[in-house]
Amino acid sequence: MSRRYDTISFLSDYGTADEFVGVVHSVIRELAPHATVIDLTHGVAPFDVRAGSLALARSISYVASGVVMAVVDPGVGTSRRGIAVEVADGEGVLVGPDNGVLAPAVAMAGGSGRAVELSNPEYRLEAPGATFDGRDVFAPAAAHLCNGVDLSELGPAVDTDLLFPGVVPLPQIDEATVIAQALWTDRFGNVQLNVGPDDLPTGFGEVLEIRCSAPSDPTGGVTRAVARVRSFAEISSGAIGLVVDSNGMLSLAMDQRSAADELDLADGDQVVITALDEGAVFAPPVRVDLTARRS
Amino acid sequence: MSRRYDTISFLSDYGTADEFVGVVHSVIRELAPHATVIDLTHGVAPFDVRAGSLALARSISYVASGVVMAVVDPGVGTSRRGIAVEVADGEGVLVGPDNGVLAPAVAMAGGSGRAVELSNPEYRLEAPGATFDGRDVFAPAAAHLCNGVDLSELGPAVDTDLLFPGVVPLPQIDEATVIAQALWTDRFGNVQLNVGPDDLPTGFGEVLEIRCSAPSDPTGGVTRAVARVRSFAEISSGAIGLVVDSNGMLSLAMDQRSAADELDLADGDQVVITALDEGAVFAPPVRVDLTARRS
Amino acid sequence: MSRRYDTISFLSDYGTADEFVGVVHSVIRELAPHATVIDLTHGVAPFDVRAGSLALARSISYVASGVVMAVVDPGVGTSRRGIAVEVADGEGVLVGPDNGVLAPAVAMAGGSGRAVELSNPEYRLEAPGATFDGRDVFAPAAAHLCNGVDLSELGPAVDTDLLFPGVVPLPQIDEATVIAQALWTDRFGNVQLNVGPDDLPTGFGEVLEIRCSAPSDPTGGVTRAVARVRSFAEISSGAIGLVVDSNGMLSLAMDQRSAADELDLADGDQVVITALDEGAVFAPPVRVDLTARRS
Repeated sequence: MSRRYDTISFLSDYGTADEFVGVVHSVIRELAPHATVIDLTHGVAPFDVRAGSLALARSISYVASGVVMAVVDPGVGTSRRGIAVEVADGEGVLVGPDNGVLAPAVAMAGGSGRAVELSNPEYRLEAPGATFDGRDVFAPAAAHLCNGVDLSELGPAVDTDLLFPGVVPLPQIDEATVIAQALWTDRFGNVQLNVGPDDLPTGFGEVLEIRCSAPSDPTGGVTRAVARVRSFAEISSGAIGLVVDSNGMLSLAMDQRSAADELDLADGDQVVITALDEGAVFAPPVRVDLTARRS
Repeated sequence: MSRRYDTISFLSDYGTADEFVGVVHSVIRELAPHATVIDLTHGVAPFDVRAGSLALARSISYVASGVVMAVVDPGVGTSRRGIAVEVADGEGVLVGPDNGVLAPAVAMAGGSGRAVELSNPEYRLEAPGATFDGRDVFAPAAAHLCNGVDLSELGPAVDTDLLFPGVVPLPQIDEATVIAQALWTDRFGNVQLNVGPDDLPTGFGEVLEIRCSAPSDPTGGVTRAVARVRSFAEISSGAIGLVVDSNGMLSLAMDQRSAADELDLADGDQVVITALDEGAVFAPPVRVDLTARRS
Repeated sequence: MSRRYDTISFLSDYGTADEFVGVVHSVIRELAPHATVIDLTHGVAPFDVRAGSLALARSISYVASGVVMAVVDPGVGTSRRGIAVEVADGEGVLVGPDNGVLAPAVAMAGGSGRAVELSNPEYRLEAPGATFDGRDVFAPAAAHLCNGVDLSELGPAVDTDLLFPGVVPLPQIDEATVIAQALWTDRFGNVQLNVGPDDLPTGFGEVLEIRCSAPSDPTGGVTRAVARVRSFAEISSGAIGLVVDSNGMLSLAMDQRSAADELDLADGDQVVITALDEGAVFAPPVRVDLTARRS
């Protein structure tokens, strides 16, 4: 007996200006009317596989048991594979292109169990063109899984060691310096870094210095003192705080303003963190090279 | 026996570019799979408690019986309380931060019954950081209410007289002049005022004069003749109409164009309404100080 | 016995910044709690009936059986009618204003069966103003249809020959030239034309020339060589491809970039397609008059 599912959690770079998301919902509704579709987000930047994989990884420990479908797919229509990957002994199945968008979430869910390539034409929709696999390949696979079709029926098994890996940058940490990277800027302008609170050396204290720079301009950028805080509202007006965010990572933040704008930070930029004498936080903010790099 | 609910109506300033809304849905799905979540809107401007409270008040008489969750929460992580407030003899429960975002809707729903502070850790999610109470506090509270948990189990009772009040500006009205305020500009550029049709003095007739000004520039702004109309299409091309909108308030509008752009109006601006001789509507629009205030 | 439905597919130009979509969902939830509402899209440009009708036509063969509600309605509150039109022997009912927004979808679904005007006040909500028929007329009609109310109860029959027609531009095709039109630019910058692959003369080969021009500037615009491809990734960097898209139409596309931006194309622009010697594709792109027309 195969498992049935009743929730499909759906993430993509489809946006909501077009009908792509609605058509995917419609296909699922027609094939598996009992399934509920939850939109994680469709606001991933077009073609940005890395950003999509990070958003999925941030969500994965909260998504309901069932099927997860992630479609950020610049290679649609090429020989890149569509895959379905079981996790947690089959409590969940992740469906999407084999381009790394699923990989960090699979790892966070405990690693892959069985995996297949979605090549069985019986469980795909026929289509005039090969540009919308969300509709023609991934939604039907997700719906049929909800109906109790076993993973193995969707296509041939895939060696999980050969799945496309995710790319999550690791920080460089030594006693005096943490070289971090800006992973994600949210709607409010908070910038999540790829370091958690335990990654900071114990001697760093409550006030730190950050030096931000874009890969294209490593000597430019902004240098600022930042205080560690527990909430946005603890940050003084105009100051930058370093907060443990809702994913347990360190985020640069301001109180009701955008830290990303203030620091001229973009996803992928480098943020070098060093210790700073506590007195400095009471001095005016240290700024270096404030000529706007991206204006 | 406690009541069960099956609908959660959800409003926030989370936007849809990030996965915040999807994660809140996921938490509810896992805790109360029978509940349907209806997204009222997540497009409230970041941190704009007033705008969120007005959007909720405009919606409240249409939301389905059940739980309403409103999260516009610049004070997340501080000592501001999370609350749940019963209305209509428990037919509805409003859940959110105690910062005024719920207050106008509670008033429109007939005032508060029982209210509690959401402090019982049994009905919250543990989280690494205190920045996402939508996920960790409000969604679990809403889901447990749907499951039949009584309000009183979520935390200690709160004196409803001490709840944070909502701020809805009142117009100043005398026989010759109505000093109104722009409450809300919708997607189409219609500008809702804080006056209803019965607030206009009876002698005002069908053609009026409006004088718009920003708080920062009370002598600038645009003066125009406006005709009272019943539909957008009754407004002549290029003219401004005053229509009774879908909430029963007066809105400044144009036919298939943005009145907000034409009048250079922003939410919170003052709009002074006076009577005008009917002949004036056939004259060219009166404009004063058209140098763009906000360019 | 009348039919019951359990899915309402909903398209509009309401956007998601305001609560309009959420209020429509709420009205349906209260009247027909068993119905599931699927949002096709609410990102149609304000008042753009043509764009809404095309998005609905692209979706219609995928929407689940049931009610379809399309609200792009610049004439709201005037004498334009609200209608409900049966298709496919009553397997579906389309609901919306009689302004052409439903017409192409009705045609694609096999043409209209019965049709009525939504004038029965028993199945409408009373409202203070006549500006939100999505809430007051169309949502109640859709919900009551789901509950088993027969179409004929919603209002008097309408002669389907007199329904407002849709406007879908036809290409001009002869042996040497296809004069096409840009129908739709999607989020990724792909531009769908109003020609399918079988509309191209057989002698045209795999490499073509396109000449783009706006109606306002017929002699300006961009001329480029384009290669026919089967996927976006087959298109060389910086080149333009012509792909059979997910609706079976020809679309101008680039690999992970916006063809609309590169070609300075807007919806409604003319695209003249002619044959081109295959060698030309290896030469640098032909460009004419690159001074930006819309800057």
